[in-house]
Amino acid sequence: MADVARLAGVSMATVSRALNNSPLVNAETRQRVTELARTLSYRINIGAQNLRLGQNRTVGVVMPFDEATRQHLSDPFFLGMLGGVGGALAERGFDMLLSRVDADALDGTTQPYDSGRVNGVILIGQWRCHDRLNALAARGVPLVVWGAQLPQQAYCTVGGDNVTGGELATRHLIGNGRRRVAFFGDINLPEVAHRFRGYSNALKAAGLDPDPLLRVSVPFVPHGGHDGVRELLRRGVAFDAIFACSDLLAMTAINELRAHGRVVPDDVAVVGYDDIELACHFHPPLTTVRQPLVDAGRAMVARLLDQIDGRPATSMQLPTQLIIRESGGSA
Amino acid sequence: MADVARLAGVSMATVSRALNNSPLVNAETRQRVTELARTLSYRINIGAQNLRLGQNRTVGVVMPFDEATRQHLSDPFFLGMLGGVGGALAERGFDMLLSRVDADALDGTTQPYDSGRVNGVILIGQWRCHDRLNALAARGVPLVVWGAQLPQQAYCTVGGDNVTGGELATRHLIGNGRRRVAFFGDINLPEVAHRFRGYSNALKAAGLDPDPLLRVSVPFVPHGGHDGVRELLRRGVAFDAIFACSDLLAMTAINELRAHGRVVPDDVAVVGYDDIELACHFHPPLTTVRQPLVDAGRAMVARLLDQIDGRPATSMQLPTQLIIRESGGSA
Repeated sequence: MADVARLAGVSMATVSRALNNSPLVNAETRQRVTELARTLSYRINIGAQNLRLGQNRTVGVVMPFDEATRQHLSDPFFLGMLGGVGGALAERGFDMLLSRVDADALDGTTQPYDSGRVNGVILIGQWRCHDRLNALAARGVPLVVWGAQLPQQAYCTVGGDNVTGGELATRHLIGNGRRRVAFFGDINLPEVAHRFRGYSNALKAAGLDPDPLLRVSVPFVPHGGHDGVRELLRRGVAFDAIFACSDLLAMTAINELRAHGRVVPDDVAVVGYDDIELACHFHPPLTTVRQPLVDAGRAMVARLLDQIDGRPATSMQLPTQLIIRESGGSA
Repeated sequence: MADVARLAGVSMATVSRALNNSPLVNAETRQRVTELARTLSYRINIGAQNLRLGQNRTVGVVMPFDEATRQHLSDPFFLGMLGGVGGALAERGFDMLLSRVDADALDGTTQPYDSGRVNGVILIGQWRCHDRLNALAARGVPLVVWGAQLPQQAYCTVGGDNVTGGELATRHLIGNGRRRVAFFGDINLPEVAHRFRGYSNALKAAGLDPDPLLRVSVPFVPHGGHDGVRELLRRGVAFDAIFACSDLLAMTAINELRAHGRVVPDDVAVVGYDDIELACHFHPPLTTVRQPLVDAGRAMVARLLDQIDGRPATSMQLPTQLIIRESGGSA
């Protein structure tokens, strides 16, 4: 009401009289004040503040696009994750506002929130943005990130248990008699770093030394599996198994091995990660660490809605599960 | 400006002077006018009416969810299409509001438009909703549908050339010496009906009679390929090739054939449809009819923006292309 008075250039008493249709205020002023009050309240209704109260049930989903690795909207795991989140939002009666932002310009992430178009933000992928995500959380933006739990983390994450995932995969390969297990993945990404820790743990537990020559840093792109196998062959290092940090990497590694006359799993056993929709239809069917997309979508949405309603939301790790098919060999 | 003058209770000349920082207007009035102008322009920016003029660059993308076939957000082709549309929207500086509606309740499709949250709607999949889509178009909703061109169509479609796609696939199989080509798909869906017409055309052009026993109606679900092969075996009908209306159907058919000891392509040649991301990584690599997702996304977005800007948008068919790999055999 103070705003209306100030903008109309009249006293608070006049505003009060005008809104109460008092005859002490002339018609022109009454009209002016009423319209101003409506305008200001309209702004408030549409604005971010009231969105938070749930009128416009929409959640922003952001897929950071990393120019360096070019991992983008055609990646099957990320599209599957989008499907999981979309399904969970639909179950709760929410729409999804999807934007794709440059991973180096994550500040744009909250634009849809700041402008009042969404009630909160789900970020699919943590990338190398830990510090910037902490800054967003400090601003009080309802935010859930798919990724790894890290030290000094102020934002809420939901993610798989990547250390255990790496251990399960590697232990399976060792249990099937493999001794020279290669690792395909970029350990600059937090989730991959955790899988590598699990891989190293499993090797050490079996009395094997992790050989740096068996670690190949490949990004999450389709040709990563091809490149990884070629790099191992170029190094001339012996290997009888590969733990690949995505199913796409595992599939393309298997194809490259086949092109070099190596039979999977007899000559080289391969375990992937994610259990994407097509992993079970591949030949040989992929042994892989499942990331539960439906549960992940529900967990992220539940934590975001908690924050939107003003309740604290703690980070969570979803259990990982080894899905044994054929590519990883058998004992 | 007239609104600002009226609400501030000053003349248009005063508003103009205030916004231009003229010393002829005192500081209090200048402040009042400036703030009012900002407030009103804020209202205009957020309001539904002007959303349509493009200030709040968002497009609604609707994925109908068909309870009967349960084709949904995990389908790799539809997720790929979502990626194509999302990429094209990002290129034009638009966000995507994704909602999933029941294919039997398509009227909900325009809710985000009617409430002013999006500038127009892209519907991925035509389903069996031809009449209801005509009704939406008659209401003047900017709308583009991915699907087949049909008689008496008032709405704008972008789609592949499904008749030619069916012809290319079937002619390739016949050219490789196959005479008993099975068809996997549900011809109640308009796009599949067109592919079936192309299949029939190619058979007749080669002097072959389409055998109704070789047509198996399977929905677009992963187990469709398994079911289709089992159904052919149950019928005891001879077949040396399968034209499957999606890559997922082709892949699962190949796996089922393998389980019955039939070698692809030697015993049974298989051609798929879509050319999803993983088709080239399958074993054997899939021969398939490519649906160009990136071009499709751009074409749909361009036609929608035309409509939003008040220009007419005509339907278009994208060219289809046969991608020859291994599963379809060779001459």
